[in-house]
Amino acid sequence: MTTFYYSPGSCSLASLIALEEAGLDYKPRRVDFSRGEQRSPEYLKINPKGRVPALVTERGTITETPAILAYIAQITRRVRLAPLEDSFAFAGMQAFNAYLASTVHVNHAHGRRGSRWTDDASAIEAMKAKVPQTMADSFVLIEDQLQVGPWVMGSEYSVADGYLFTLAGWLPGDGVEMDRFPKVKAHFERMQARAAVQRALAVEKA
Amino acid sequence: MTTFYYSPGSCSLASLIALEEAGLDYKPRRVDFSRGEQRSPEYLKINPKGRVPALVTERGTITETPAILAYIAQITRRVRLAPLEDSFAFAGMQAFNAYLASTVHVNHAHGRRGSRWTDDASAIEAMKAKVPQTMADSFVLIEDQLQVGPWVMGSEYSVADGYLFTLAGWLPGDGVEMDRFPKVKAHFERMQARAAVQRALAVEKA
Repeated sequence: MTTFYYSPGSCSLASLIALEEAGLDYKPRRVDFSRGEQRSPEYLKINPKGRVPALVTERGTITETPAILAYIAQITRRVRLAPLEDSFAFAGMQAFNAYLASTVHVNHAHGRRGSRWTDDASAIEAMKAKVPQTMADSFVLIEDQLQVGPWVMGSEYSVADGYLFTLAGWLPGDGVEMDRFPKVKAHFERMQARAAVQRALAVEKA
Repeated sequence: MTTFYYSPGSCSLASLIALEEAGLDYKPRRVDFSRGEQRSPEYLKINPKGRVPALVTERGTITETPAILAYIAQITRRVRLAPLEDSFAFAGMQAFNAYLASTVHVNHAHGRRGSRWTDDASAIEAMKAKVPQTMADSFVLIEDQLQVGPWVMGSEYSVADGYLFTLAGWLPGDGVEMDRFPKVKAHFERMQARAAVQRALAVEKA
């Protein structure tokens, strides 16, 4: 049995969506960040990084959103959640996911988890001030990626779409109006209409 | 013809090593950061993110180290630069690469490119102060990953090894002695002995 460790509002939603799109049998397990459960000895045994997501399979644990997304697509090939037969297209999807993980998520984190990178209280406040700008700058590039559409990879839906949906959902809280990015907004609404996305959001709320 | 855009001392070394290990025919093209070439209109046409690495193929451009590394491994399967036949092992390699990209490289960047996340000069200085701690914390986890060895994935060499070598090489400049991590140091020296690594370093120096 596969267990998926998640926290509502975090990037783990991207993997939840992929699990639901793939129709995989899994047990969702909420990690309570309000109680600091991600730092508990029990959870650190599952993921020593003290973060979500973590996908615990019969063979062991997989962490990091881009790795989990590609894995889910690979083990459920018939559902077609990634362009697996085309290395160049797969690399394009992976580059998009890597950008979300290494740049966009990191920009967002400076508004909430600045203590990762400094112990200086005034510096943590200073970091928060730039989040609307860095998030908007990132979404200018993402808006351009969606020129073809309707999905991140063009005509084919992929695990990258659930990841984009997750991070685009952070824009209002980061002080950026989604209306500035019409293609991102249309993509967000298209995603909200998908049954698998609604199931993933229901898991988060349960 | 494939062209690879790199900058000496940056994370592009990981992809250079992979290109050399794979024996691919490519043209290395240095991007001169000292002259701000990564922000020139010509380079932004190649990579709108204004960063390296960028691998320009006949079909288009691939960015982001984890995506380039998996791509190189996939198009040169016989060289065996990733556990491509095993989705779980491949996910493990990808998770390792994602951690280097999203956490370790980001920690390092706070010592040199703090202006990405704040415009406040004193906050930029405050960020620099924590780099030795965040880099050391990350390498505690990496040292643990190397328990099996001799390579990141155990007995099989992969593109993750060149990536680890690249970021481990940043430790002294980030105020962390590599001696604190004996397995990382032994891995670093094992990598230095590889002909492909020596060729990649020679490309950087050319």
